[in-house]
Amino acid sequence: MHFTSQQRFDDGVLEREFTLGEIPGILWTPASASVTAPVPLILLGHPTLGLRKMYPRLVARARHSAAEGFATATIEHPGSGDRPRWPAAEQARADLRRARETGEPVSHEIVDALILPLVERAVPEWQTALDALLSLPEIGGPVGYSGGVISIGIRLAVVEPRIVAAGLFAGSFVPRAMFEEARQVTIPLHVLLQWDDEGNDRQAALDLFDAFGSKEKSLHANMGGHTGVPQFAGDAAAQFFTRHLK
Amino acid sequence: MHFTSQQRFDDGVLEREFTLGEIPGILWTPASASVTAPVPLILLGHPTLGLRKMYPRLVARARHSAAEGFATATIEHPGSGDRPRWPAAEQARADLRRARETGEPVSHEIVDALILPLVERAVPEWQTALDALLSLPEIGGPVGYSGGVISIGIRLAVVEPRIVAAGLFAGSFVPRAMFEEARQVTIPLHVLLQWDDEGNDRQAALDLFDAFGSKEKSLHANMGGHTGVPQFAGDAAAQFFTRHLK
Repeated sequence: MHFTSQQRFDDGVLEREFTLGEIPGILWTPASASVTAPVPLILLGHPTLGLRKMYPRLVARARHSAAEGFATATIEHPGSGDRPRWPAAEQARADLRRARETGEPVSHEIVDALILPLVERAVPEWQTALDALLSLPEIGGPVGYSGGVISIGIRLAVVEPRIVAAGLFAGSFVPRAMFEEARQVTIPLHVLLQWDDEGNDRQAALDLFDAFGSKEKSLHANMGGHTGVPQFAGDAAAQFFTRHLK
Repeated sequence: MHFTSQQRFDDGVLEREFTLGEIPGILWTPASASVTAPVPLILLGHPTLGLRKMYPRLVARARHSAAEGFATATIEHPGSGDRPRWPAAEQARADLRRARETGEPVSHEIVDALILPLVERAVPEWQTALDALLSLPEIGGPVGYSGGVISIGIRLAVVEPRIVAAGLFAGSFVPRAMFEEARQVTIPLHVLLQWDDEGNDRQAALDLFDAFGSKEKSLHANMGGHTGVPQFAGDAAAQFFTRHLK
């Protein structure tokens, strides 16, 4: 893990960009984080639009979390931002665009081709990032995962025992195979669903919530469209992490 | 409105039982409530098991709300507790018991017979209670409605302009006609659904949430069965009322 730049905001939050091999990432720590007072960590998931495009929303979430005493970190997705594309993913994205333009339903095959290879590649990278982040003296545990891509969150919740709670955003396509994986999730879950998100399959999101094996799981459905998550929904997610990571 | 008894708890909350004609009720006010500092009011809905049986849960909700600065009040349902039964309601309850014992699905006819006359009778009584409660100098506005019977909450939200926000419990039967009424609701809503409530029709609850006309509506689904609403779900409902009544 190699820090490439740093800046401190006026709320005391320290933002550090890093690279982990070829993977760029960003770490935010609250002013209070220190060797003698390490803080819990939340991994910030995001859609596959590239870190640079997502930065304004990510930094807002990071500073909100820092105010609650959490460090947050995120990494670029394989195939997003400046990271190399791979042909199958490009093909799947083109197929998705075409389906949307013609108004056809997005087939299971397109969803599988779009998401499954991404999960296969991204999850080990998140785990490598977790190794590096937890080796920093100012970062303690426990660890939470927050956001999309929901299939990445599901796989991480199943395979990564250091993640003890997840706040998932039900706003992306979910391959059929992930419903089976969802049954294996047992950590506390806080699932956010934008009820009037036209680009999202609401019934699939409800079925997925039903499938989760967790004894404690909450679904918070709100209005406001895909990107219009209300402020109070963010506050509720923060309270979920405070309950489980503190 | 005639106060029949009063007691003050060690948290300063004043509990007063009252009668309003033949209707018994209870009013709880926080220690801070006074003529010069009137407090907002939350009407506490409850299932049709009778006030005496519901008292432990009601007083817990009342004291929780008082800690947030709200007065709360509730009244006995027509046909519950010591209030006179009426034959059609008794028949509907008997039909419901029989359907449950034999494992038959509960028919629309039974639900209509059980709920619609209750709504017709109860809603004007809540409005009369509201008149009396708001005439007390220590009770100001605005007013919220919280709890079940959800159909009573829906009708009140449609016909009673003094109610500006409602926290509804999706845990009771809903007549088909109420779905049409739900479309006319425009006030902010916070709907609680116990996801694993076996006595409740989950799909009907989701359809009802979808039908509400409100621009701001949130569905909070949690585990724990019909009576196992988690503590944090109560906290979230309290925050909803704080956002809208303060």
